[in-house]
Amino acid sequence: MTAHPRLSLNQATIKYATLAEALDVAVAAGYRSLGAWREPVAEVGLERAVELVAASGLRISSLCRAGFFTAQPGAARIAALDDNRRAIDETAALAAAGAPGSAAVLVLVAGGLPAGDRDVVGARGRATDAIAELAPHAKEQGVTLAIEPMHPIFAADRGVVSTLGQALDIAEDIAPEIGVVVDTYHVWWDPELPAQIARAGASGRIASYQVCDWMTPLSADSLLSRGYMGDGHVDFGAVTRLVEDAGYTGDIEVEIFRQEIWDAPYAEVAARVVSAFDAVVAPALG
Amino acid sequence: MTAHPRLSLNQATIKYATLAEALDVAVAAGYRSLGAWREPVAEVGLERAVELVAASGLRISSLCRAGFFTAQPGAARIAALDDNRRAIDETAALAAAGAPGSAAVLVLVAGGLPAGDRDVVGARGRATDAIAELAPHAKEQGVTLAIEPMHPIFAADRGVVSTLGQALDIAEDIAPEIGVVVDTYHVWWDPELPAQIARAGASGRIASYQVCDWMTPLSADSLLSRGYMGDGHVDFGAVTRLVEDAGYTGDIEVEIFRQEIWDAPYAEVAARVVSAFDAVVAPALG
Repeated sequence: MTAHPRLSLNQATIKYATLAEALDVAVAAGYRSLGAWREPVAEVGLERAVELVAASGLRISSLCRAGFFTAQPGAARIAALDDNRRAIDETAALAAAGAPGSAAVLVLVAGGLPAGDRDVVGARGRATDAIAELAPHAKEQGVTLAIEPMHPIFAADRGVVSTLGQALDIAEDIAPEIGVVVDTYHVWWDPELPAQIARAGASGRIASYQVCDWMTPLSADSLLSRGYMGDGHVDFGAVTRLVEDAGYTGDIEVEIFRQEIWDAPYAEVAARVVSAFDAVVAPALG
Repeated sequence: MTAHPRLSLNQATIKYATLAEALDVAVAAGYRSLGAWREPVAEVGLERAVELVAASGLRISSLCRAGFFTAQPGAARIAALDDNRRAIDETAALAAAGAPGSAAVLVLVAGGLPAGDRDVVGARGRATDAIAELAPHAKEQGVTLAIEPMHPIFAADRGVVSTLGQALDIAEDIAPEIGVVVDTYHVWWDPELPAQIARAGASGRIASYQVCDWMTPLSADSLLSRGYMGDGHVDFGAVTRLVEDAGYTGDIEVEIFRQEIWDAPYAEVAARVVSAFDAVVAPALG
């Protein structure tokens, strides 16, 4: 089997696979790249994960995910920052083990409002401060910190950074090497999308482009309301052309959280991702 | 019983009440204002609705809702525009029947993407054109068309106008008298909120301020994931101060879609709204 050369299978799309299984499935389905997650890496330990990645011959397109640093100053915040430093080191090791063209990109999700806290502005400030604090260690390790703006549906309980424009404001405030993630699920609705993708491209900050569709009616667990590209409401041609025109040439991850997809055989999912990508994303690529 | 003098009971909060019941409940609970909905008005007919409103002694703070004009040109679009013209006439009649200080404000929800249509930019353009087409009739009737930006969770299936900034762009493109709705549920997450509320105030476009809380976890039907002010994540002090500082002096509607609240006795709900408003909204009012 063959897959588009820029297509990367984000491991969350086959959530229940081990790292070894995910790599095997991706290779068998013709992928050249995998978007890794920390939990399956932790299951086998970083050393073994590095061996598995190196043996697979696949590129690593990113590591998901760190962040969750909106806690008030104190023990929880210190623990979050320590965990983020470990994630930076994992990103560097996995990208070094991956095939040439791997990207040492760590996806950062800000985290939601702490329990009982309604100050979203303050939470955003603490997330910004945390990224600034992590930036020197990331730079030293050659890792790009990539801020992922999350759909406003998640602003309260998962990610207080809500738009690409806001992610770029934060990145620009911190350092030239801080990146952003463009994920169609999170940003497709944004009236500012063309301007903000162009802005991200102009400063070389698009560190990852992730695709999946926005499905309605929403799943009862709205976190899982994603779908294969073409099954929902997103105009992948339009968004992909914006990302292309902004100069992004890296891997494109397919990251789908959906219970039916998680329950399907991994190989079937990997094949379906290839065909959905070919049908609605690839035609917009240069 | 007494309620804050600027508090208005949006009838959707007691969804199953008839217009007569809603007016009675509001009067008994000490409200001076009601936010009306078209369906209960249609149930009794406009003429009878006007009599009921006049007899109640309450102000009418707005009529919800018209819009839904993203259909492609053709019969559906013509029907939508005709329906919107009727809604404008209803708004004028109900506001005239209400007590002094009533607001002839018609709340407009853009509508979602037509089935199978993924062009959100095109749908937004058609919504804008529709409002422009309705503007002269509204002006003639003394009715303010108030564009309600909807939370991006609804961009696909309910409202393609997603931010206050976008609603203001549309309003400013059309005419000085086009207004906007600031609804905490829809806008609380927006990083641009302070700037956009100030902008809306500077051009006198805040036609309605509606409050209710954003609750997590989201209800299985996410449309119903609202709650009493203070029960969720919204910082009502911060948002209300922004609206006050922007110069808005009108009624403040409480509009809550939530099954448990709809299932509770109307008088109990009306009383609970009064106390929630007093606790978290009123302290921020001048």
